[in-house]
Amino acid sequence: MEYKVIEGGGITSPKGFTAGAVYVGVKSRKSQKPDVAVLYSETEASCAAVFTTNKFCAAPVILDREILKNGKARAIVINSGNANAATGTQGIEDARTVECEAEKLLGVGENEVFVCSTGVIGQKLPVEKVLDGVRQIIPAKLDAANGSDAAYAIMTTDTVRKESAYELELSSGTIRIGAMAKGSGMIHPNMGTMLCFLTTDCAISSEMIKSALLETVQVSFNRISVDGDTSTNDTCCVLANGLAGNPVITEKGPDYDAFVEALRALCVELAKKMASDGEGATHLITCTVTGAGSEQSAETVAKSVIGSALTKAAIFGADANWGRVLCAMGYSGEDFNPDKVDVAFQSQAGSVQVCAKGRGLDFDEDLAKRVLTEHDVTIAITMGEGDSSCTCWGCDLTYEYVKINGDYRT
Amino acid sequence: MEYKVIEGGGITSPKGFTAGAVYVGVKSRKSQKPDVAVLYSETEASCAAVFTTNKFCAAPVILDREILKNGKARAIVINSGNANAATGTQGIEDARTVECEAEKLLGVGENEVFVCSTGVIGQKLPVEKVLDGVRQIIPAKLDAANGSDAAYAIMTTDTVRKESAYELELSSGTIRIGAMAKGSGMIHPNMGTMLCFLTTDCAISSEMIKSALLETVQVSFNRISVDGDTSTNDTCCVLANGLAGNPVITEKGPDYDAFVEALRALCVELAKKMASDGEGATHLITCTVTGAGSEQSAETVAKSVIGSALTKAAIFGADANWGRVLCAMGYSGEDFNPDKVDVAFQSQAGSVQVCAKGRGLDFDEDLAKRVLTEHDVTIAITMGEGDSSCTCWGCDLTYEYVKINGDYRT
Repeated sequence: MEYKVIEGGGITSPKGFTAGAVYVGVKSRKSQKPDVAVLYSETEASCAAVFTTNKFCAAPVILDREILKNGKARAIVINSGNANAATGTQGIEDARTVECEAEKLLGVGENEVFVCSTGVIGQKLPVEKVLDGVRQIIPAKLDAANGSDAAYAIMTTDTVRKESAYELELSSGTIRIGAMAKGSGMIHPNMGTMLCFLTTDCAISSEMIKSALLETVQVSFNRISVDGDTSTNDTCCVLANGLAGNPVITEKGPDYDAFVEALRALCVELAKKMASDGEGATHLITCTVTGAGSEQSAETVAKSVIGSALTKAAIFGADANWGRVLCAMGYSGEDFNPDKVDVAFQSQAGSVQVCAKGRGLDFDEDLAKRVLTEHDVTIAITMGEGDSSCTCWGCDLTYEYVKINGDYRT
Repeated sequence: MEYKVIEGGGITSPKGFTAGAVYVGVKSRKSQKPDVAVLYSETEASCAAVFTTNKFCAAPVILDREILKNGKARAIVINSGNANAATGTQGIEDARTVECEAEKLLGVGENEVFVCSTGVIGQKLPVEKVLDGVRQIIPAKLDAANGSDAAYAIMTTDTVRKESAYELELSSGTIRIGAMAKGSGMIHPNMGTMLCFLTTDCAISSEMIKSALLETVQVSFNRISVDGDTSTNDTCCVLANGLAGNPVITEKGPDYDAFVEALRALCVELAKKMASDGEGATHLITCTVTGAGSEQSAETVAKSVIGSALTKAAIFGADANWGRVLCAMGYSGEDFNPDKVDVAFQSQAGSVQVCAKGRGLDFDEDLAKRVLTEHDVTIAITMGEGDSSCTCWGCDLTYEYVKINGDYRT
């Protein structure tokens, strides 16, 4: 039941998935970075998806909620550079036009292609450009070798591609799970969060893939935060085409558990990549809370800490300002005894305990500086309330975050 | 029932209040800025106070909650540079030592002096230095002319003193209300918020002054946010010594209403000063929400907008990125129809409507830039749900905020 990482793997690592991407200038710019991508399954796939909880959900999210009712899908069209959000009925028509064109070109049925957008809010989707991209990609550029191009095309302010794939031995055969995601800004744990696309050749029923996705998102993407802003376009979508040939997973049991375990590990990997590549970030911050009264309590406290602007700025400055960690715990809304709390900063440079039983300790400031200068930093909290725990991920707050977001549209 | 601003007024404008401040180097630094202040009422004063809701409340907050039970007070000792938070029982003893010394020097009774601290969390209060300051101030430096010195002494990363005073005609005579406050970082609407000290020579019962303070804080300090971090030390405290000689206000009625109206205007003025002087801020952001289904709903939406890191960064960049305003409304948790929302940006340079019925409008980008380049910027939202409204205040997110907080302790 062990899973292993597929070297250089991604969204097209599972059998029967191809992808392609082109540059069409959705948001006119000079980089020529691809901005339209298509992900395609050669056969019908079970699907599940979770979307933003934002009241101003984007047009493609409204459309995709409809398509999801179908329970089956064949492809996903994604554009970056324009979110197609706050665009009214015109926006929904535009998304539908893209969907229909892709279905026609692919020769698949109605309601079988999802459409996703990410970028600036409130500007009309340049639908002709997106359609042009779709026509260039289908069928000429669809290839299992192009998964990484698609991962590149969906990036906005991301600085690195976020993709990975695992191979997993079930009792009944070998299956693969692939993923690509984009993150960067407007990232906050509240459901789907950002764009993430998952593929698997595992044969699994619609009901079971939905259950697996919900379980997984809750403990991966919903546990990261870049800036506390929950986007209008957050989408996490999985397609399962069954081409691995294993007997279909139709109920919970060892194979389902093994699948979820691998899916969770994959999503946590991508969630950490997303936090690590948060806009302007120079540190990945991991907050581990142990000894909590419940997992929910541990999660609330950990999220409050990774969401604290002051804590994030302190980590940027490699300043062991643990008082801000306590402060963020204290306003999380959770009930606990402050006099039982221990805090340590950890990284590959070492571990420094800075607070015991709610009080400051004399600690080695030089060592603390070295610990916090590392890219990956852990804030380890012990609450002394029980034996539940949770881990959340975030990033530091930097000049660059402000710069990127002070002038994003222009 | 009109109130008027007392030119150059502050905490010692009401009759019978004196103050003093000295530098003792609580947090060793070179600025020689005063860091210990005492506020004194020549006669016994009714008092009311609200404190932080943070679980890790500071030692002086724990002490002051006890002192408040007395219902009467004579003085307040405040130090900046050290928060005396996360300092355990030692911290409470230290605060008590400061209180007792001040009571002895002033010749007043037990539990009649509040102690407040602001600054770094988790370091032991240098109690000898604070005592030295108290001894220098009492009685030599206590003077009605020194109110502004006290306002200076309580500043940490504040760049300007925050003080003001109003004079008010009640049906039964003239009374005055004075105030000083400090803000800057760790500011988020969740009760008391920051340090604010209010004095009045109005004769008003303990019960009525408490009621007036609670009403007022709710619609002033609880409606500002700098960074979403609720401090461990937030305190807002009012002393009413009755020296104006008006008949004591013991119940609600026209005089109480007039008093509350003036108190509210004074607190809103200080709250706006606090937001405007938020750490690193270059803009005061006012968010007005009208047409809401309820005042609570309007407040939730307005707070979400002024708390959004992305919106704050956009205002810093004078970027009319109204999509982020919609986004922040959308994740506020309030239920409303996105298709009824209008948004405009306003300042003394003009007004630009950017969104009508939830959709983007073509607008004059040059004008929008001019509007957002002003220091005081308003985000005006109309929800189309009802006739309730609310105004909240915040500030932009800047490089300077990150710089200040990346290296605060050292």
